[in-house]
Amino acid sequence: MDASGKWHFEVVSLDLSMLYRIRDVVYTGQTAYQRVDILQSEEFGRCLVLDGKTQSTEFDEHVYHECLVHPALLSHADPKSVFIGGGGEGTTLREVLAHRSVQKVTMIDLDKEVVDLCRRFLPQHHQGSFEDPRVKLLHQDARGYLAETDETYDVIVLDLVDPMEGGSAYLLYTREFYETASQRLNPGGILVTQSGPAGLINYTECFTPIAQTLSGLFPEIRPYTVYVPSFMTPWGFTMAVSDPATSLPGSDDFVQVARSRITGDLRYLDGVSCHGLFALPRYIREGIASETRTVTDDDPVFMV
Amino acid sequence: MDASGKWHFEVVSLDLSMLYRIRDVVYTGQTAYQRVDILQSEEFGRCLVLDGKTQSTEFDEHVYHECLVHPALLSHADPKSVFIGGGGEGTTLREVLAHRSVQKVTMIDLDKEVVDLCRRFLPQHHQGSFEDPRVKLLHQDARGYLAETDETYDVIVLDLVDPMEGGSAYLLYTREFYETASQRLNPGGILVTQSGPAGLINYTECFTPIAQTLSGLFPEIRPYTVYVPSFMTPWGFTMAVSDPATSLPGSDDFVQVARSRITGDLRYLDGVSCHGLFALPRYIREGIASETRTVTDDDPVFMV
Amino acid sequence: MDASGKWHFEVVSLDLSMLYRIRDVVYTGQTAYQRVDILQSEEFGRCLVLDGKTQSTEFDEHVYHECLVHPALLSHADPKSVFIGGGGEGTTLREVLAHRSVQKVTMIDLDKEVVDLCRRFLPQHHQGSFEDPRVKLLHQDARGYLAETDETYDVIVLDLVDPMEGGSAYLLYTREFYETASQRLNPGGILVTQSGPAGLINYTECFTPIAQTLSGLFPEIRPYTVYVPSFMTPWGFTMAVSDPATSLPGSDDFVQVARSRITGDLRYLDGVSCHGLFALPRYIREGIASETRTVTDDDPVFMV
Amino acid sequence: MDASGKWHFEVVSLDLSMLYRIRDVVYTGQTAYQRVDILQSEEFGRCLVLDGKTQSTEFDEHVYHECLVHPALLSHADPKSVFIGGGGEGTTLREVLAHRSVQKVTMIDLDKEVVDLCRRFLPQHHQGSFEDPRVKLLHQDARGYLAETDETYDVIVLDLVDPMEGGSAYLLYTREFYETASQRLNPGGILVTQSGPAGLINYTECFTPIAQTLSGLFPEIRPYTVYVPSFMTPWGFTMAVSDPATSLPGSDDFVQVARSRITGDLRYLDGVSCHGLFALPRYIREGIASETRTVTDDDPVFMV
Repeated sequence: MDASGKWHFEVVSLDLSMLYRIRDVVYTGQTAYQRVDILQSEEFGRCLVLDGKTQSTEFDEHVYHECLVHPALLSHADPKSVFIGGGGEGTTLREVLAHRSVQKVTMIDLDKEVVDLCRRFLPQHHQGSFEDPRVKLLHQDARGYLAETDETYDVIVLDLVDPMEGGSAYLLYTREFYETASQRLNPGGILVTQSGPAGLINYTECFTPIAQTLSGLFPEIRPYTVYVPSFMTPWGFTMAVSDPATSLPGSDDFVQVARSRITGDLRYLDGVSCHGLFALPRYIREGIASETRTVTDDDPVFMV
Repeated sequence: MDASGKWHFEVVSLDLSMLYRIRDVVYTGQTAYQRVDILQSEEFGRCLVLDGKTQSTEFDEHVYHECLVHPALLSHADPKSVFIGGGGEGTTLREVLAHRSVQKVTMIDLDKEVVDLCRRFLPQHHQGSFEDPRVKLLHQDARGYLAETDETYDVIVLDLVDPMEGGSAYLLYTREFYETASQRLNPGGILVTQSGPAGLINYTECFTPIAQTLSGLFPEIRPYTVYVPSFMTPWGFTMAVSDPATSLPGSDDFVQVARSRITGDLRYLDGVSCHGLFALPRYIREGIASETRTVTDDDPVFMV
Repeated sequence: MDASGKWHFEVVSLDLSMLYRIRDVVYTGQTAYQRVDILQSEEFGRCLVLDGKTQSTEFDEHVYHECLVHPALLSHADPKSVFIGGGGEGTTLREVLAHRSVQKVTMIDLDKEVVDLCRRFLPQHHQGSFEDPRVKLLHQDARGYLAETDETYDVIVLDLVDPMEGGSAYLLYTREFYETASQRLNPGGILVTQSGPAGLINYTECFTPIAQTLSGLFPEIRPYTVYVPSFMTPWGFTMAVSDPATSLPGSDDFVQVARSRITGDLRYLDGVSCHGLFALPRYIREGIASETRTVTDDDPVFMV
Repeated sequence: MDASGKWHFEVVSLDLSMLYRIRDVVYTGQTAYQRVDILQSEEFGRCLVLDGKTQSTEFDEHVYHECLVHPALLSHADPKSVFIGGGGEGTTLREVLAHRSVQKVTMIDLDKEVVDLCRRFLPQHHQGSFEDPRVKLLHQDARGYLAETDETYDVIVLDLVDPMEGGSAYLLYTREFYETASQRLNPGGILVTQSGPAGLINYTECFTPIAQTLSGLFPEIRPYTVYVPSFMTPWGFTMAVSDPATSLPGSDDFVQVARSRITGDLRYLDGVSCHGLFALPRYIREGIASETRTVTDDDPVFMV
């Protein structure tokens, strides 16, 4: 392999990095909140990179976004109102809107510039979802909004950037925030949040503390993982249900139920693979079981 | 992150690479067959690298080796004789020998120098397994040996280096070789082979052709995957059973059965995680179903 | 230093590479002859990269181009006609045209697409020189042209890509070509060619064989070097004079003579620095003195 | 070029890095003052790396050390006593001791552990110079020593690590220190110091401020540069003479004079190349002329 050429260098940890080849820089700049790169890569197609971390790529964003959105929405009997925190690319929004039952979505992403850049440069990501009349799009602090709004939701989907020291998102991963969010859920409501990397090497960075924090607030949590190629690691999600009777469609019915409720085809999920997400490796189950840290405003969690 | 320092650079594909930081080079040299580096890394501990590709690391070799060995041996009712192809570090051997039922293991690794280096420099890997009196260790061509031997085996475990152009292993991934191997299986015997990367980005390189090739020779194949951190990708395995009635212990019984049959504790596998290995993502199931390539001596498969 | 971000990776040799950070990819593509990248770098400004090798950058192209052109033209008493081989960025052309005595320049660069891209994307390089009415610009094989033309020149400037196996330029570094070129020189004419890297690590790749080859055809050669930051190595040039009485302006007169003959200011060269170019390190002088290889069509020289 | 393998990654600046391939890590550790790596590289042989910065390599240390030592010692009529600050590898010491006139050398390197490691692992560097009976080797602060000693010297050679924020050496690059050092010079004495990188990209980091600082204390300074391959940049030195009549042997006599005074052969320097060191590029001469910063204890200079 000839290494000559143009690369995106991404720090995974102090001692681990990855390089992917880029063809073009579609956009590069700095917003009020973060550095933004939109890259055309050889391996992954068009990529959104925030503060040097790849957020989603044309090639595999469907893995991440289907797994973030559909387990929660399909676990709810009839999701009509949805809140999305973050998700600037509009892909979480796209997947939520595919549910025919959904009548209203409030999406809050702090960084309007990023959203505008995604609308312009990532059309394969959002596929026009921002134009849907069911959407209310706001640019402000999601925590403040949830604290003050009268709205309530059937599902809350948190698609936030990782909690970083000095960043804007770490206060959206604390007990205080989750408590506020839980109070905005309708009876039987579900909250799901991206929960950071879930590989053997990094699953204790965020994933187990988030699980521990949510398990103190909800009657049941359902952590799960999926391997996201452009992250080069399995990724963690945590679903928290206010009603333990809530459940996914069964493996055999899954495709039929999904078709009846979701417009368009799923690419990653079907019955086997959706249920497979929850068949966690032993180290994660044991790690969650033995985790004692609760994330709070005063004692937050940060990724490297 | 300060990138200054010493790194192992590994080419994953033409357009994707990874770097992990090294503290020391424990050994570096060239055998008759391959370049060997034994590295002390910061992230993964001691690593065996052949021809620039990380083969196994102290940190996560248990993931790979438990998943390679135990599903096959636990699917067999009473494995007494085992053949191992490759596996120079002695870790596959270690896991096989942990089965109390095993009375005899024939291990063939072409490259005696690599085996000797592993015995010397990777004590945490083999943990003395080469000294076990049940072991017959040979250094010759595994295919030739199987073609000529009178021995038969309950389980054949293939822990070979990836098939590379110009390499020594690609003729151990063909229909002709698998046919020879299958003729050395006792009734009810099982063959399992490492089958290359199984991520969304690379699952068609080897994994689906190997599955297709084995499915033409055995009544049933059972492909599965696990994420191996130091490979930065999910990895594929294919189990081929001569008796479809063969089955893993159930999820609930798994730990109890494993304890009764295996000396020492398993670190990665238990009922949930072992059965979870077989809950394949949809792209892999569909990829295997639609694969048409059969690997043959005349039409072999090579990794990049 | 945080290595996260976008980099150009350049192979210097099998065992040595450099990385410079890029902000943007201004252009990337493939012409009939070569891969072209025009990069906006942080350290060097806008860069032209051909087949993965940095050719010239906004930050330091003046070092290379002043040193390529002015020693030869100022050594000639009255250069009226000049031939340029290569030099697609138009910067060699710019420096040649700055000489008021020059009445006619024939520039031949094989790759019209590269020239067109440079005209469009590297305005700070050519600064409009292609529009000068004294210029005849052709896109064909320079060697064939010189073999057939009736034109003769006072100075021939060869600003070619390095001789690479499989490339288009290596036949413009041979005795046969230099013989043809020398026959197109007017009495007292001078030929100068870029001659590859001239560091302690790589001066024998091209520099000493080119010097040896030209010394067999001209009464005197005058090799010289300058450090070019974006190449991260000293670079070699060889001036070959048909009249040994030819000489540079003296150190004390240099600036005055240069001002009288050249429009605009020189940035790198003055008397001390121009004469300093020829104060070669001992290893180069000894390397040239002991070099025995003559580069021929049948026995060409290639860079790594 | 296949980039797979083991590399030393070196940050040159925020936006520029180099990679050289390593075969082995001879030693790695942390002393009380700095991180030490002794590497066996493919391109440069054995390398000493302190805090991630390559200090000297087997391949090209003769370039740096001949140029640091001999211009100063050959400019002095009869150097008998020499002080060396830094220079842990023992190579500066080796070059100083090669002068037959030298009767006594005081060498102070703060970090005894580094010196001991160099004695053990870099025999090609020091070549036994530490055993010479003319040497007094101390491990303490050079500045404190010079402030208190009664010794005086004909030549002071400063071969210190670069001034880094948080490092131990930056107070050995200030006016206050140079003043102390100058008071320890015998009449006609000479001080020479390594002065950091001198490329077009980095010559103002240290080189011009050091020149400006020394020019305020000595009647004449003589800055010079040489390209050091393993630094991938020209490197600066500043000689400060207390007697302006002091001069190098002439170009024609140089070799003869050097042979009469120095045991063994010089590899890099002869008359042309030694005088050539002082033929500075225009940007450096103009940069020094226009530099206004004087480095002081209160206003020190740091490298990136």
